[in-house]
Amino acid sequence: MTDGEDGGVRTIGVDLGGTKVLAARVAPDGSVRDRVKRPTPTDGPQAVAAAIAEMVAELGGADRLGVGTPGYVDADGVVAGVPNLVGWEPPVPLRDILRAAVGLDHVVVDNDVNAGTLAEAAHGAAAGRGDVLCAFMGTGVGGGLILDGQLRRGPRGLAGEIGHVTVQAGGRRCGCGGRGHMEAYAGRIGMEGEARRRHAAGEETALVDLAGDGRMKSGTFAKALDRGDRIAAELLTEAVDAVAVAIASTVMLVDVTTVVVGGGVADKLGPPFVARIEEAVATHLGPALPVAVLPAALGDDAGAIGAARLAAPG
Amino acid sequence: MTDGEDGGVRTIGVDLGGTKVLAARVAPDGSVRDRVKRPTPTDGPQAVAAAIAEMVAELGGADRLGVGTPGYVDADGVVAGVPNLVGWEPPVPLRDILRAAVGLDHVVVDNDVNAGTLAEAAHGAAAGRGDVLCAFMGTGVGGGLILDGQLRRGPRGLAGEIGHVTVQAGGRRCGCGGRGHMEAYAGRIGMEGEARRRHAAGEETALVDLAGDGRMKSGTFAKALDRGDRIAAELLTEAVDAVAVAIASTVMLVDVTTVVVGGGVADKLGPPFVARIEEAVATHLGPALPVAVLPAALGDDAGAIGAARLAAPG
Repeated sequence: MTDGEDGGVRTIGVDLGGTKVLAARVAPDGSVRDRVKRPTPTDGPQAVAAAIAEMVAELGGADRLGVGTPGYVDADGVVAGVPNLVGWEPPVPLRDILRAAVGLDHVVVDNDVNAGTLAEAAHGAAAGRGDVLCAFMGTGVGGGLILDGQLRRGPRGLAGEIGHVTVQAGGRRCGCGGRGHMEAYAGRIGMEGEARRRHAAGEETALVDLAGDGRMKSGTFAKALDRGDRIAAELLTEAVDAVAVAIASTVMLVDVTTVVVGGGVADKLGPPFVARIEEAVATHLGPALPVAVLPAALGDDAGAIGAARLAAPG
Repeated sequence: MTDGEDGGVRTIGVDLGGTKVLAARVAPDGSVRDRVKRPTPTDGPQAVAAAIAEMVAELGGADRLGVGTPGYVDADGVVAGVPNLVGWEPPVPLRDILRAAVGLDHVVVDNDVNAGTLAEAAHGAAAGRGDVLCAFMGTGVGGGLILDGQLRRGPRGLAGEIGHVTVQAGGRRCGCGGRGHMEAYAGRIGMEGEARRRHAAGEETALVDLAGDGRMKSGTFAKALDRGDRIAAELLTEAVDAVAVAIASTVMLVDVTTVVVGGGVADKLGPPFVARIEEAVATHLGPALPVAVLPAALGDDAGAIGAARLAAPG
């Protein structure tokens, strides 16, 4: 092996997001050798595949390609339900479209959160741990489960949806239509909705001043917190509590011993925020059931690193 | 094979409970060929092992013995935390004690709820299904998980504890000290506590009339419901809702497609009660995520059948 490559086999991982595509040449040890980024084409899967083919060429070509995409993905790389991707009408046979566009047979497609989970468990915060929950706090809260060292997919590819675990029966409305799901309290969209409701009801908050008519980003919450904004502090305390309750339920159900918390919100607020979650989990579970809650280590690269790992398992 | 036996190999499964011990000779197809019952000895593990040895002899001897016991059980058959068994001071090396008492090397010990789960998934309501949650509603609510056809134990043997999944953050106090756990609403002890609180606060209920100073049994709830008792009806509606929320969270987390509901409360109230749980689960998850919620099929034999299966896997 030279330069960390896998006997000269070139592996590229792609993180396909709603706004940008990140492609990276990844070594077997999970390190990123080179990366390129582009805005996500908004005119459908063929255009996205063409962009990925160009990015693969820019990176010097690939022998194996892994792609993490939003939506549920079946064993044949067919994508269903992709609300974040403009111009997609599911089901999209993304693996086959990519094979044709890139001119490569060895293409693997999976869910982007599964990819991020694999990366954190193999090369990131939970490296070497066998029973891991990853929670990624962004617009919603995505998640993935590693049980006995294996990614749990489930018969419908649903497993790991920590954001839709109920923490408060009959509670706050979730984007999915359910009530009291963790994501309704800890996802950016849920927190923004609550901030705007309280603002409309006459409460002052720097969150609305900072965001204006635009969306509240992870940085908006971090800035408002820095300014001592009371509503931002309350919303984030609710988020910590909701994430901790969902983690405690997960521990009782599947007995994970390590939890990784990442995503824009956690990355912006940093390790002290994740430490608050760990403390709240310990309050729920008690000293007999210690659980390590760790900040994600791979940041924005997690999806691409995990996608590369999908294409080159082992 | 003769008479459903496994090439002449005699397998006995034992369900060790707080009040009674059930031992059964079990055929490879899960059918019970013969069974004996005794009150559980209250003078410690050695006395329990001696009783089991006598029951094995009554059943004609065994080549393989499986035992399901309350408490957490490690890979060496050592039992920790057995609140239901009088005179036990954990850790109890139950497997080794049984080997000596029975004079048999092939002895397997596991948690009783794991045994019941294995039985329902192999030979009972969920036969042939690969991704199954079992919930047993008794004094508390025990549970087990089958994922990809395998019992999920977890690194600490904790997996499947559906009764301690949170359904209402900050809600009703659970026997374990936590708050808002499903068991606090759906376990017999939690329901009795709430009934007695409401009675003490001046509300009339047939539950207290029927139970007097004794414990409210599963039949007490069934009888009160038959008499049109309002509090019994409300408590059971809360139980249905709590179990359904915990099931919905489990589906989102690990993507089981079949749920088996058993235990004294469910057995006494029967299939219509379990159908109410299925309906409530469907309300939470919507038509895109159908989940079958089925009454347990093996009743009181589940533990012994599962224990036999532990001793004779495959």
